[in-house]
Amino acid sequence: MSDLLRWRTVATPAMIATFDDRATIAHALAFEVALARAQGATGVIAPAVAEAIADGLADLRIDPAELAEEAALAGTLAIPLVARARAALDGEAARALHRGATSQDVADSVLMMQVRRAGALLLGDLDRVVAGLRAQAMTYRDTPAIGRTLLQDAMPVAFGLRLAQGAAGLVEARRALDDAVARHALLQWGGAAGTRAGVDGRGEAIAAHMAAGLGLGCAPPWHARRVGVGAIAAALGLVIGTLGKIARDVSLLAQNGVGEAREPAIAGRGGSSAMAHKRNPTGCQVALSAAARAPGLVAGVLAGLPQEQERGLGGWQAEGPALEELFLLASGTAAAMAVVAEGLEVDGTAIARNLHTAGMGDDIGESGAIIAALLRAGD
Amino acid sequence: MSDLLRWRTVATPAMIATFDDRATIAHALAFEVALARAQGATGVIAPAVAEAIADGLADLRIDPAELAEEAALAGTLAIPLVARARAALDGEAARALHRGATSQDVADSVLMMQVRRAGALLLGDLDRVVAGLRAQAMTYRDTPAIGRTLLQDAMPVAFGLRLAQGAAGLVEARRALDDAVARHALLQWGGAAGTRAGVDGRGEAIAAHMAAGLGLGCAPPWHARRVGVGAIAAALGLVIGTLGKIARDVSLLAQNGVGEAREPAIAGRGGSSAMAHKRNPTGCQVALSAAARAPGLVAGVLAGLPQEQERGLGGWQAEGPALEELFLLASGTAAAMAVVAEGLEVDGTAIARNLHTAGMGDDIGESGAIIAALLRAGD
Amino acid sequence: MSDLLRWRTVATPAMIATFDDRATIAHALAFEVALARAQGATGVIAPAVAEAIADGLADLRIDPAELAEEAALAGTLAIPLVARARAALDGEAARALHRGATSQDVADSVLMMQVRRAGALLLGDLDRVVAGLRAQAMTYRDTPAIGRTLLQDAMPVAFGLRLAQGAAGLVEARRALDDAVARHALLQWGGAAGTRAGVDGRGEAIAAHMAAGLGLGCAPPWHARRVGVGAIAAALGLVIGTLGKIARDVSLLAQNGVGEAREPAIAGRGGSSAMAHKRNPTGCQVALSAAARAPGLVAGVLAGLPQEQERGLGGWQAEGPALEELFLLASGTAAAMAVVAEGLEVDGTAIARNLHTAGMGDDIGESGAIIAALLRAGD
Amino acid sequence: MSDLLRWRTVATPAMIATFDDRATIAHALAFEVALARAQGATGVIAPAVAEAIADGLADLRIDPAELAEEAALAGTLAIPLVARARAALDGEAARALHRGATSQDVADSVLMMQVRRAGALLLGDLDRVVAGLRAQAMTYRDTPAIGRTLLQDAMPVAFGLRLAQGAAGLVEARRALDDAVARHALLQWGGAAGTRAGVDGRGEAIAAHMAAGLGLGCAPPWHARRVGVGAIAAALGLVIGTLGKIARDVSLLAQNGVGEAREPAIAGRGGSSAMAHKRNPTGCQVALSAAARAPGLVAGVLAGLPQEQERGLGGWQAEGPALEELFLLASGTAAAMAVVAEGLEVDGTAIARNLHTAGMGDDIGESGAIIAALLRAGD
Repeated sequence: MSDLLRWRTVATPAMIATFDDRATIAHALAFEVALARAQGATGVIAPAVAEAIADGLADLRIDPAELAEEAALAGTLAIPLVARARAALDGEAARALHRGATSQDVADSVLMMQVRRAGALLLGDLDRVVAGLRAQAMTYRDTPAIGRTLLQDAMPVAFGLRLAQGAAGLVEARRALDDAVARHALLQWGGAAGTRAGVDGRGEAIAAHMAAGLGLGCAPPWHARRVGVGAIAAALGLVIGTLGKIARDVSLLAQNGVGEAREPAIAGRGGSSAMAHKRNPTGCQVALSAAARAPGLVAGVLAGLPQEQERGLGGWQAEGPALEELFLLASGTAAAMAVVAEGLEVDGTAIARNLHTAGMGDDIGESGAIIAALLRAGD
Repeated sequence: MSDLLRWRTVATPAMIATFDDRATIAHALAFEVALARAQGATGVIAPAVAEAIADGLADLRIDPAELAEEAALAGTLAIPLVARARAALDGEAARALHRGATSQDVADSVLMMQVRRAGALLLGDLDRVVAGLRAQAMTYRDTPAIGRTLLQDAMPVAFGLRLAQGAAGLVEARRALDDAVARHALLQWGGAAGTRAGVDGRGEAIAAHMAAGLGLGCAPPWHARRVGVGAIAAALGLVIGTLGKIARDVSLLAQNGVGEAREPAIAGRGGSSAMAHKRNPTGCQVALSAAARAPGLVAGVLAGLPQEQERGLGGWQAEGPALEELFLLASGTAAAMAVVAEGLEVDGTAIARNLHTAGMGDDIGESGAIIAALLRAGD
Repeated sequence: MSDLLRWRTVATPAMIATFDDRATIAHALAFEVALARAQGATGVIAPAVAEAIADGLADLRIDPAELAEEAALAGTLAIPLVARARAALDGEAARALHRGATSQDVADSVLMMQVRRAGALLLGDLDRVVAGLRAQAMTYRDTPAIGRTLLQDAMPVAFGLRLAQGAAGLVEARRALDDAVARHALLQWGGAAGTRAGVDGRGEAIAAHMAAGLGLGCAPPWHARRVGVGAIAAALGLVIGTLGKIARDVSLLAQNGVGEAREPAIAGRGGSSAMAHKRNPTGCQVALSAAARAPGLVAGVLAGLPQEQERGLGGWQAEGPALEELFLLASGTAAAMAVVAEGLEVDGTAIARNLHTAGMGDDIGESGAIIAALLRAGD
Repeated sequence: MSDLLRWRTVATPAMIATFDDRATIAHALAFEVALARAQGATGVIAPAVAEAIADGLADLRIDPAELAEEAALAGTLAIPLVARARAALDGEAARALHRGATSQDVADSVLMMQVRRAGALLLGDLDRVVAGLRAQAMTYRDTPAIGRTLLQDAMPVAFGLRLAQGAAGLVEARRALDDAVARHALLQWGGAAGTRAGVDGRGEAIAAHMAAGLGLGCAPPWHARRVGVGAIAAALGLVIGTLGKIARDVSLLAQNGVGEAREPAIAGRGGSSAMAHKRNPTGCQVALSAAARAPGLVAGVLAGLPQEQERGLGGWQAEGPALEELFLLASGTAAAMAVVAEGLEVDGTAIARNLHTAGMGDDIGESGAIIAALLRAGD
């Protein structure tokens, strides 16, 4: 089984790779190695045992299909994965493996390694959209155009104003994402009940060592304290919705009765299986489709917040797929809208003609100053 | 790329296969063949041409990875798929292929073929849960037990009453799903703007022929009339939430301080990577995780209802993945809860001891009559 | 406190009245009277006592502000309400009041009395929208117009086709609502733990008597079996989303660059505080605003399905406000769109001019037959 | 009409007052006065005219019921409100009123004045919950208790650990709210199309003056740039969900089969209309009910992000009610859980007995250090 058709239409290859089985398994093994090395460094296990674990797992190959089968039965990825890892190790190393850890430690830390990488990828894509919109906004900072409110012609604006608003909104959403990932992409390690029992009182030092090794922030265990996961999901919802706003506007501008701008022409993109002449706003479609899906995915994560006791039943297991899907949607949307923003085809003649037809003058008020203020935001 | 780990933990293999790339491509080709044959049967194209299309597509092998790449670029599956199909055909057959159809015709019809099959699979799984619960409810129809309200001990009930309530709720949700699929798993075929233009006025006959061939209901085009999709999604939300209610109850009964029932012991299932002695309610976990995710997925479909004009931008493209995910979640949940319902381990001693400790008598009111009424429902 | 501004902008006065404090209190007292009379009729209490209860409550005046204060403290409406009712009665009647009932019996039955009345109101409003759209669709069944897909000009359609699609979608959603209310607006009465204890084994007869008296369906207690509530919420989500689709289309048609139709002119409606010349699509605004809110409200109800044990903690208490808000939104939306549908100003000249400018012919395919089929639906 | 019963059960009186009609009207008039004074101070209108406006509106009494009627017709609050205000003014003042402003300027600024006040109220309530939990966590920092995972007994923890986790989660959610309100409670003022036209190029100075006067942040117009509204909604979702987690735990601890803690006894609270002996976890009920509703409300706000052009149709009109409802729910939840946290009745005997029965030792690992770290967070 594979669902290429499903994902390739909404996500970038780099983002798909970030969450694929190979990455998941590699991160899980990295967690076990970091745990062993941290325990080696703090004297909980012998350093040689830690290195034996690291060496033994370095060459381990795990078949995702088989692992998936076992994980589905066990109800958690870590149990079969640790069993396979242990089988690859000898005596003391096998016994020391996964010491003081629980399944959710692995699952959450893997997720956060993926979140960290996915966040960096996404911020890069968003920067492209922002840069593209800013450049367009500067180009059209003085171009009078119809401003439209409640889907009706209203008063003149600079054509660049709407684009600058889009850029500024995206900068705000981008900041929310950056902040959420920086603050909440944390190592999870607390052991069975979140007390870091069984490691000779060296828990805090072990955690610091692991976090550094895995590139994650360090904090007390957060097995049932899921604000951070919710904050990341919400930030992704803001990013996708803000990209959706830009897509909404481009698709409205591209209507034949308006014709003021459209997506760039790209070979093989935006065609119709029935009408050869059409140029569909395919990038906007990706964004608007994602914007329809994202709010419910965020709601699903928020709904899981009231998790039970030390580690909950069902709530946190629902979060990983939702975060993954939000990142996948956001990546495809950002990539699609980057192409749109960078290559937007603006038709100055149509802008002027529409303005004239509407009988509006060209008083664009303080559009220029507002554009300047909007483009300063986030610098 | 493949995300086996993602899906195997939440869905049955049969349901995964229903929505996988292979099935999607096969259904899409079946749509094109059915269209050709219907046009052959109604005299729009020559019957021999229709058969040439059928023959030519019978052996067509399409690589999902390549198709996904092209579909992502085109913004729709149908364009590259039809191009590949056309390349496999000669002259007249190539020209007649996909006549009078548009991308969304293919996408929606494929989705509905999958919905029809997925619905049948799911109803079967639900029947197992219902049967299991009914049998347990009958066994414990006279067993006094603590009834609990607002998470507090309240008054005695028959232990079977809660199970009978679960069965009756599931019968109601099952009926909603059955009804929604029967009513709304419809052929989509309307052509570019939903007018069935270009087929010599034989549209209604062609549609009837196609629907019969593909095992779908027949109706006027519904490109932007998405009530049916919303109704199917909502019914799946009801199914998953109702299974979640049963899971909630089993997991509360299985608490160590209650101990009145628990999931059956299954080798390899419900263990803990840290605590060998634990028996985790893993089936309930699957159900409660799904119940956290489903409402937001339903909301995403409902949010897409206000689609634009003849065929919308973004809204309907968001529906397929949501429906698919709901079916996948529902299948895994139903399968997991079928095992739980069939093998539920009830501890009569604990039930009696808890009742006694609570100082309650054994007046279970009209539990028996209510159980009987609940079990009659849906018969 | 009062929040007139909040509600008057989204709901009809009749719907507001259906859910207001006065109605809530009256329904709650009606429940207690029906319970007493049913117990009188079945010999559980003396008929004279039942009539004493009915008489005593007939003149009871309860101040909503005081009751609200007490209900907020108690955590349930029924406790202070029953206390006040009891204080108005003498000896035996006071003791017999609320016999065999629990707070949730009152809350759920009141909600369902309101649902029943709200459903009838709403169906009437929807009929107006459907009739308006059907009439318009018939008028423009042969008028060639641009069909638009993915927000781009596509192929000609009959102008009436889109309106007929709107009518047919609404008929489907209306049916879902009608079915859900008919099936699930049920009496709730089961007593403390849902066993109908303490009424001498006359539970089923009492329930039948009560249901008939209150105009509700009769069923076993459903304190924690909430499929019906979810189904009603989902149907309202379908209704609002379908109205939103019609609003989306009207607002797109009313764009100045399109100009093919617009909302009727009504004194005082659709103005702008800044631009006297504008005619805003205010009815569409009501509908699209509701369509943004409804999916999340439905999700909130579905999220509550996994309720605990005999009567849950938090889940069902969340449903009433959501159902109420959905009905309020639906009523205002239906009323607004009824005005739009009935008085839609169609500009045939603009339709023809746009078609000509687009260089499209006037082949509207089988629009006429499809319109006819769409308008037959639901008859 | 009034719906006291609806709101008093979920919100504090202070929060209800923050969003009531009186406050809404007062804020709207304050907006108009601030606009006039800012234009007076910057020379756009004569200072005397500005003062005439301020004086004229100071005594203006507006009947909410009448205004609501008119606003429902107009589709916006500002139109009838400005008309009434204008009627109270003479010549030049009447003409200068509302100069350069549009309806959405008023609506959004009013909402943000309410958000600012509501945020401050809520932060105060949250501080009470945090302080209560911290004190309890300190008291039980060394008390061994059963740690529970996946609703099963797992390993010992300090009883205070779970409470400290709750406090730390709340501190994180509180910070998100504080940050969102500080960053996004902004003046809205941009005029008809968001260009600040018609004020002689003094827009930036006017905005700064207004923002200072109204106690709001200053920024370029954000009519269709709604990230801030989404961020506030999401933060409220995090707050409510985190309170829900604490409620979930208290209600599970209060189960009769566990009995380790329960809500404080308060006269008139937590009773049952059917069972006099019960003490229901009524504060937890408020919180869990809110936690079921909040995610969907957040989703509704996020769904509105893709707003059209300079000022959208439907999207922003959906936000105000959702933000208001989230604040109302959060206030009631925080107040209820403050009482629970401050007065939580912990049963040390039951804790020890359960631990003993489970056969667990008293190795609580590094619970103490983790509690200390959790309680330091946010200081």
